[in-house]
Amino acid sequence: MARKGRRGAKRGGRDTAPRQLPWRALRNPYRPLEILSADQLEAIHVASLDLLETMGMDFLDDDACAVLRRAGADVAPGERRVRLPRDMVLEAVARAPSEFTLYARNPAHDVTFGGDRLVFSAVASAPNCADLDNGRRVGNYHDYCNLLRLAQSLNIVHVLAGYPVEPVDLPPETRHLDCAHGALTLTDKVWHAYALGAYRCADSIDMLGIARGMSHDELHARPGLFTVINTSSPMRVDGNMLEGLKVMAEAGQAVAVTPFTLAGAMSPITLAGALTQQNAEALAVIAYTQILAPGTPCLYGGFTSNVDMRSGAPAFGTPEYVRAAIAGGQLARRYNIPYRSSNVNAANAVDAQAAYESMMSLWAVLTGGANLVMHGAGWMEGGLVASFEKMVLDADMLQMIAEVLRPIEVSDETIGLEAIREVGPGGHFFGSPHTLARYETAFYQPLVSDWRNFEAWSEAGSPTALDRANIVWKQLLEEYQPPPLEPQVDEALKAFMDRRRKEIQSAAA
Amino acid sequence: MARKGRRGAKRGGRDTAPRQLPWRALRNPYRPLEILSADQLEAIHVASLDLLETMGMDFLDDDACAVLRRAGADVAPGERRVRLPRDMVLEAVARAPSEFTLYARNPAHDVTFGGDRLVFSAVASAPNCADLDNGRRVGNYHDYCNLLRLAQSLNIVHVLAGYPVEPVDLPPETRHLDCAHGALTLTDKVWHAYALGAYRCADSIDMLGIARGMSHDELHARPGLFTVINTSSPMRVDGNMLEGLKVMAEAGQAVAVTPFTLAGAMSPITLAGALTQQNAEALAVIAYTQILAPGTPCLYGGFTSNVDMRSGAPAFGTPEYVRAAIAGGQLARRYNIPYRSSNVNAANAVDAQAAYESMMSLWAVLTGGANLVMHGAGWMEGGLVASFEKMVLDADMLQMIAEVLRPIEVSDETIGLEAIREVGPGGHFFGSPHTLARYETAFYQPLVSDWRNFEAWSEAGSPTALDRANIVWKQLLEEYQPPPLEPQVDEALKAFMDRRRKEIQSAAA
Repeated sequence: MARKGRRGAKRGGRDTAPRQLPWRALRNPYRPLEILSADQLEAIHVASLDLLETMGMDFLDDDACAVLRRAGADVAPGERRVRLPRDMVLEAVARAPSEFTLYARNPAHDVTFGGDRLVFSAVASAPNCADLDNGRRVGNYHDYCNLLRLAQSLNIVHVLAGYPVEPVDLPPETRHLDCAHGALTLTDKVWHAYALGAYRCADSIDMLGIARGMSHDELHARPGLFTVINTSSPMRVDGNMLEGLKVMAEAGQAVAVTPFTLAGAMSPITLAGALTQQNAEALAVIAYTQILAPGTPCLYGGFTSNVDMRSGAPAFGTPEYVRAAIAGGQLARRYNIPYRSSNVNAANAVDAQAAYESMMSLWAVLTGGANLVMHGAGWMEGGLVASFEKMVLDADMLQMIAEVLRPIEVSDETIGLEAIREVGPGGHFFGSPHTLARYETAFYQPLVSDWRNFEAWSEAGSPTALDRANIVWKQLLEEYQPPPLEPQVDEALKAFMDRRRKEIQSAAA
Repeated sequence: MARKGRRGAKRGGRDTAPRQLPWRALRNPYRPLEILSADQLEAIHVASLDLLETMGMDFLDDDACAVLRRAGADVAPGERRVRLPRDMVLEAVARAPSEFTLYARNPAHDVTFGGDRLVFSAVASAPNCADLDNGRRVGNYHDYCNLLRLAQSLNIVHVLAGYPVEPVDLPPETRHLDCAHGALTLTDKVWHAYALGAYRCADSIDMLGIARGMSHDELHARPGLFTVINTSSPMRVDGNMLEGLKVMAEAGQAVAVTPFTLAGAMSPITLAGALTQQNAEALAVIAYTQILAPGTPCLYGGFTSNVDMRSGAPAFGTPEYVRAAIAGGQLARRYNIPYRSSNVNAANAVDAQAAYESMMSLWAVLTGGANLVMHGAGWMEGGLVASFEKMVLDADMLQMIAEVLRPIEVSDETIGLEAIREVGPGGHFFGSPHTLARYETAFYQPLVSDWRNFEAWSEAGSPTALDRANIVWKQLLEEYQPPPLEPQVDEALKAFMDRRRKEIQSAAA
């Protein structure tokens, strides 16, 4: 399929491989913006705890209710409404580490969360995918694998985060085995297991152990997997999620708790109300995780956005989304827990809207002090589509954000008074030795942006950013090389999958 | 011409007038980001002063050289290389006000610069313009007027800033008269006069006085015009600019001093070097302005970007641009002078690149604490094109930035614990009284963004953001109403123009 790109490549005038930034761990040197005053932050904190203590939250799992009851929560017999005393919540939440590392199959791809760290993930959980050549289609394993290959190829994508697209062509009961195999063989980055009941998480952890040649104890000490726990807002968490959470937490793997609090739909229409509810839900599930397995690496997830009140459609990358994301960072830091945000948009085409909504959310990440950016590359249509072109466009935008994080080097050499004096008033710096010594690496070189003048660009066929992104992903797929893996490890993975496939099928029969 | 939009309007599904935010004065509540440490800032400051004192700057105007010599600068007889002692520069710069107001013909459109104020301008100085219907073309007075009408219609465009497009069809010697007439009759916002020699500025001030019924003294006390002084980097300022500057400053009108320091071309390739040179040039011209007319309202302009080192083409909205813009804000605040930045991009199409480069520069504005955003709406191709669609797209982005500046209201009512309790776990907030009381105004409603689902959007003809922006500007032009103006004022303006046209033509003959 990668062959299809050649004609397009000529049209866009880029026959050489796109030059990426090297993989690097990012640190955000900027002091986060603050949209909430200390008093406002405290008011939201207090109201969240009040809500958990007096109204409570539904934990739709009997085991979870029992665990919380034993820890001091008020749960009426036969009920799943859990009222969590304020001190119990805060004591449990305080056990979550402020910083933690997830270990990849390739140690060069380990990632650390917390503090000033910033980690970008690939798109996750889209039911459909799309590209310019083949249009929009339901997710399938072929596209799943190609999106993984792209995520592996793009240095700025630090981790996987769920299935980039749902492989609907595979049976749902055993799909996780194939997906884990893809993640473990086509990539060597940290990845993600869905908390859809217990066994899928357990299988993923087993397969991670096989791939890394590690026991469960060793994996516990050096976790390499995370799961996103979405609450079913308002104030409810589903049984499937809780079962998966338990397996992951007890295995020492990471848990990113993310209420999806769309203001005006699943939470109050006011940002203060939506943030209060987000905070209550996040604290409740983080507290439960820490009661279950103290010290489990957790992320505090913020995903408060708004709906279009005329249609009820969710909107993303809006001003309200940005303000909530900045406030969410303040809340996460109040509890000293790494903060998860996202790169989102609601556009149907990879056009200006897709770009400006994504940029709004990426700047909320930068200024809000987020540590993990879910859906960093490839998300479209509010999560309904994983786009091949958007993945490349996002990679360019993520690289730009990464470059904005670079401090300015100030020294006698970089100030360059001698160079300015040599050039003198009215001169130019193109040929200056100061320039020549630095020109190859001085500036960010984009993957997609086209800076040719209008005439040259028109002669090249007037390619838009979408056209150019189309060329780049095909080049990347063409040049993709799978990361090294011992053949016997792959055999062991396949043997495990065969066994588990049979067990799952016979259990279902 | 506005009629052409109707078919497109149906295609995009927007037959009603776009709902804008009301005009409002913006304040940026966020603490600006800091990319330079205090020591680094000081190093750049010291190096800039060193450069001015030891190498000097070329002021290509004998009068300016004489003024500076009398003020203590070192200017060799017959030379225009001016060496400015450090203390002289700092004493003069300290006379610039930290905040000032420009007064519009319509007092509702007065604007204040400095502190946490944020003012957005229309695109300026493009030689070409473009729209989807008529393509790309050389600037002309018809398009000039239509772009002014759009700038007047868009509430988020606070001020004009130079000609949105250059009306090349008018004779250059008298073009400023027609342009001033357009600005004074088609809009009632603060505007701008080009410093292209003395007489154009003088005519603009005279016409402003006629339009506002004010004497020169009254205009001095309540200025309503500004000019951008671009240095001819490196370290030079042209005679035409200095002549215009003198007229404006002595009339009490505002001066936005903006070195255009493209790193690697007109300034060192290093950001520290480019910023040092930017700072030296800005300080030198601001100092000259304050020596000439102490207390003249000035803006410190930062326009440091980079070139594509492979082609020499200028690039905008890049990570380097953002870092320089954030640092520029730190420099401007060091001197307590309002800061001018810009909304820039180098894209040839109103596509994802145009949007993400503009968003990068707009977030540099927000986080860098800029007070005036030049080229706020409509700039394309690094300034070579004023785009009708981009003007609308930018207006949407500017409105989003303005909404990000809104604090979050935190109170018992907005936290809404009662509403959350009423809805309860697993419920929804669509019909909640708390929602119904607020839904009409709770969220930003965009001009361009399309949040319909894919199916509805496809049925509507799959309009991109570009298609939708095309519809909006045509609607705005169709609904445009000129601001009120007494007929005798317009007659007086026309009489002035007739007289001046004759004088200029006979002087040239």
